[in-house]
Amino acid sequence: MRKIEHIGIAVKNLKESNLLFEKLFGAPAYKEEEVASEGVKTSFFMNGPNKIELLEATNDDSPIAKFIEKKGEGIHHIAFDVENIYFEIERLKAEGFVVLNEIPKKGADNKLVAFLHPKTTNGVLIELCQEIAE
Amino acid sequence: MRKIEHIGIAVKNLKESNLLFEKLFGAPAYKEEEVASEGVKTSFFMNGPNKIELLEATNDDSPIAKFIEKKGEGIHHIAFDVENIYFEIERLKAEGFVVLNEIPKKGADNKLVAFLHPKTTNGVLIELCQEIAE
Repeated sequence: MRKIEHIGIAVKNLKESNLLFEKLFGAPAYKEEEVASEGVKTSFFMNGPNKIELLEATNDDSPIAKFIEKKGEGIHHIAFDVENIYFEIERLKAEGFVVLNEIPKKGADNKLVAFLHPKTTNGVLIELCQEIAE
Repeated sequence: MRKIEHIGIAVKNLKESNLLFEKLFGAPAYKEEEVASEGVKTSFFMNGPNKIELLEATNDDSPIAKFIEKKGEGIHHIAFDVENIYFEIERLKAEGFVVLNEIPKKGADNKLVAFLHPKTTNGVLIELCQEIAE
């Protein structure tokens, strides 16, 4: 756990929210990316050592569509940068956390990712992410 | 907006959640602080350049008590580190954001703080914070 890699925010309309966050940060998103396997379109904003990821659902079964239906737009997850995701998964399992992806999967922004179940983390959806080496 | 200064997480029981986040980060909270004016007890964890703040309500009128009643435990706000909070408040007002504290107030962790209304920020409660010079 070396830093907050990004905060993921669920939005209804990526285009409109991109304009909003561009005003907030004074700079536009540096990239957009669709992750078909997760049913999301994403955009990323840099903020010093951290990023903000906006997520719009691309279909009704997307976790983001379900989140917005239940809770409305807002913060969806916190992602922490880890050096070795396999090591962290084992360490956190041993500490009693429920890891949703025991085998990390490919996420947006060239990362291997795994999520912890919010029921074991005070209602916070936590993502571990490790940059995939070139 | 220089980085994510901290993420604020609303919890029911600070003592129990301190143990949980100590396991997550592999290190204990580096300080605890009560902010009587906000009706909260807080603890802070370092995570590289960022912090995590846990917040427990100390009375039923606390914004944290109301948040947990409505939404349950979870992420309450994102705080961004700013160099000049007065400048940022004016800049963001001019961009159409609703600033809840036009005059910044003293927050936890030796900071001047101001919040943006979530209705203008995609449902995300955003805090601006500036370290108070010694």
